Amino acid sequence: MTAPADPPPAPRRRGRPARTDAAAGPGARERILAAARAEFAEHGYDKASIRGMAKIAGVDPALVHHYFGPKEQIFAAAVEEAVAPALKAPAAVAEGPAEGAGERLARFVLGVWEDPATREPMLAILRSALANDTAAGVFRDLISSRVMIRVAAELGGPDARLRAELAAAHLVGVSMLRHVIKIEPLASADIEQVIAMTAPAVQRHLMGG
Amino acid sequence: MTAPADPPPAPRRRGRPARTDAAAGPGARERILAAARAEFAEHGYDKASIRGMAKIAGVDPALVHHYFGPKEQIFAAAVEEAVAPALKAPAAVAEGPAEGAGERLARFVLGVWEDPATREPMLAILRSALANDTAAGVFRDLISSRVMIRVAAELGGPDARLRAELAAAHLVGVSMLRHVIKIEPLASADIEQVIAMTAPAVQRHLMGG
Repeated sequence: MTAPADPPPAPRRRGRPARTDAAAGPGARERILAAARAEFAEHGYDKASIRGMAKIAGVDPALVHHYFGPKEQIFAAAVEEAVAPALKAPAAVAEGPAEGAGERLARFVLGVWEDPATREPMLAILRSALANDTAAGVFRDLISSRVMIRVAAELGGPDARLRAELAAAHLVGVSMLRHVIKIEPLASADIEQVIAMTAPAVQRHLMGG
Repeated sequence: MTAPADPPPAPRRRGRPARTDAAAGPGARERILAAARAEFAEHGYDKASIRGMAKIAGVDPALVHHYFGPKEQIFAAAVEEAVAPALKAPAAVAEGPAEGAGERLARFVLGVWEDPATREPMLAILRSALANDTAAGVFRDLISSRVMIRVAAELGGPDARLRAELAAAHLVGVSMLRHVIKIEPLASADIEQVIAMTAPAVQRHLMGG
């Protein structure tokens, strides 16, 4: 994901749209997304500005618009990138015997939160989503369509969507108390103990009963 | 909690501390706390200012300091007031037979989140706590000392604190996905169904096994 050879953004001309095609290098999109995440985390969804993102990324604001369009679409792209590791959750449920699905999902989701490299981008997005209805909607639509519907399809049976969401709610709540609020002893507990104690509840949600 | 007869705050004099004792009316403290909550919710912990709180409350900034001291202590008081409804959770666990503790705790906590009058102040505080380490510490200390230690004392047995925290994590996660992210079908599900589906997992955490 390094981008040593991006061409510099085209200079902006007054009175007409900036030419931005020449700046579309292989690393620019990733750099802008990282900058957008930082801008949303620092200022919240409402006050985050395209100008601020462009400044952090070291590009012309027109280039940000060129790649992503308006703010809501930048946020959607940032959410998609930040939650990309979590999008493999349906596979974690599917790959193996049903009686181990709760343990596999708990291990997978808590593991994504355990690693700072995957936790911090998700947390930045989650903070924005918790503070703003538009941002919450973007986050909700992605999680619904890419995770919950797919997990529910693996589960089948009555209330599969609701059961998938309750399982996810448990794991998100554990991750937030452990890594953000940092309440003890949960924050320092061995991850294997946390997985072992959470998996039966997750399993019960997934399989019903 | 109405305060129709507060005396007006003392006028501020340049060059010396304002005299504030005369403004210590019965409703001023509550008004300042509500203003502090609004200021923290709007600007986040870091950027919230005592001047901003005073402006919203219609009092002199010196009066805010007179009642609460520095920002961290104002936040602590705002947290204490906002989570006051949740502080009865240990009683919900204690009052009744052990086999119904999970259902009582789920009903109590989800009920506090169901009512906008108790949800919105808690949510404002939680948003600040999720975005700032100092705020998270204030929130954590209060929840640990006033809720988790007491619930754990009711439970007894090994890992009582950890089990109390996992039960709380589940209920906080459900409340956030239902009321903040508003993911469907959880957001619109009948509250009795949500309680019925969540209670067994909470019971399992509380009672071990």
